[in-house]
Amino acid sequence: MAVVYAVGVGPGDPELLTRKAERILRSVDVICAPTGAAEAGSYALSIVEPFLDRSRQEVLVQLFPMVKDQKGLDPFWEEAADQVAERIAQGKDVAFITIGDPFLYSTYLYIHRIFLAKYPEIRIEIVPGISSILAASAVSGVPLGLAAEKIAILPAAYEDAELKRTLEEFDTVILMKVSRVFDRVYALLKELGRERQGVFVRRVGSEEEEVHFDLEALVGQKLDYLSMLIVKKGAL
Amino acid sequence: MAVVYAVGVGPGDPELLTRKAERILRSVDVICAPTGAAEAGSYALSIVEPFLDRSRQEVLVQLFPMVKDQKGLDPFWEEAADQVAERIAQGKDVAFITIGDPFLYSTYLYIHRIFLAKYPEIRIEIVPGISSILAASAVSGVPLGLAAEKIAILPAAYEDAELKRTLEEFDTVILMKVSRVFDRVYALLKELGRERQGVFVRRVGSEEEEVHFDLEALVGQKLDYLSMLIVKKGAL
Repeated sequence: MAVVYAVGVGPGDPELLTRKAERILRSVDVICAPTGAAEAGSYALSIVEPFLDRSRQEVLVQLFPMVKDQKGLDPFWEEAADQVAERIAQGKDVAFITIGDPFLYSTYLYIHRIFLAKYPEIRIEIVPGISSILAASAVSGVPLGLAAEKIAILPAAYEDAELKRTLEEFDTVILMKVSRVFDRVYALLKELGRERQGVFVRRVGSEEEEVHFDLEALVGQKLDYLSMLIVKKGAL
Repeated sequence: MAVVYAVGVGPGDPELLTRKAERILRSVDVICAPTGAAEAGSYALSIVEPFLDRSRQEVLVQLFPMVKDQKGLDPFWEEAADQVAERIAQGKDVAFITIGDPFLYSTYLYIHRIFLAKYPEIRIEIVPGISSILAASAVSGVPLGLAAEKIAILPAAYEDAELKRTLEEFDTVILMKVSRVFDRVYALLKELGRERQGVFVRRVGSEEEEVHFDLEALVGQKLDYLSMLIVKKGAL
């Protein structure tokens, strides 16, 4: 029976794909790539383009419009799942590509839930990818965790008190999509005397990658949506 | 100037190396591989063996004996760093290979600290690798985090009260090297009515990989040192 592969394509650099991801992308019949806006194209697709043969492979760019609440996307995900299921029924292998890792804050997880609920008979294989967290740690030279160190990963929604407690209890705290709350987070770090214990990484693995250790210089700036902050206990 | 590459080689499957890791391993002059016991050989080395050309490349297996306290290893790490520095001075590129990712609970981090302190002039590049956490999530089909979910990663040293609080506050809790404390953790999960919300994964990515959703069956067993437990809020 045909297989759906959920393929993590890493943070942006095509060299950070795994050998397995490359093999699967070269061999499948259909590649599905998500985009938030039709005119923008698919970032995931641009990463894997060198491995594709469009004369032999079908490339489906699937539109999931930018909306505030992901639930508004349910009909789009459902249609995308239907398109995949149709090709699986024809005996075609499908790769659904996703930035980073498919099981760590990826948009693939929305379609995954629909596969499980609506098409439980479809065989799915998850192909892990280098997460932006690992890539940001590597380019900044700031290790995520050694020995008995505890790590917390927080999406950008949290209260100050909660963040403060997490900073106290964990050796490493990773704040995803930090741009919208950066000034508030910086003020808290300063209050704790820890404003020099963080590194800000934007668009890791892409041409626009930037690494900032001077957090104060970022206060009041309009920051990139695709950015994260890694805060450590002790010296960086 | 020559470069030290800290190369994450993934959890065990040679296909989970990145393309970048493969390119570097094929091109460097020297490969350093850690082992805990001389007679056991190096697990990291066995993963990358297919990419090496021993007629052209030097392979240094470096011994770091199993000891209770990593501090007892300082002389071994220092000697290993000296061996690397000697080759860098000769203009040779060196890859230090490590299971998983170099900056996430790897033994490489010990040698990294010595490089920074003793050889600050040496250029180091970190090459991220698929962590066992990502691989365990993929093979078990249990996602790590979606949307606003919070993730905690705990090494095996923690008190019951602390673990309980972490389980309450985080959507996903990953317990590394859980074997020694498994029975205690299971009892706590049962007390919280959450004994069906975890998946146990041993030696992910290797020939001996196992995935267990029936945690009760593991109680009282002698479990593998290389194993982890992923606990989620809600159904798996």
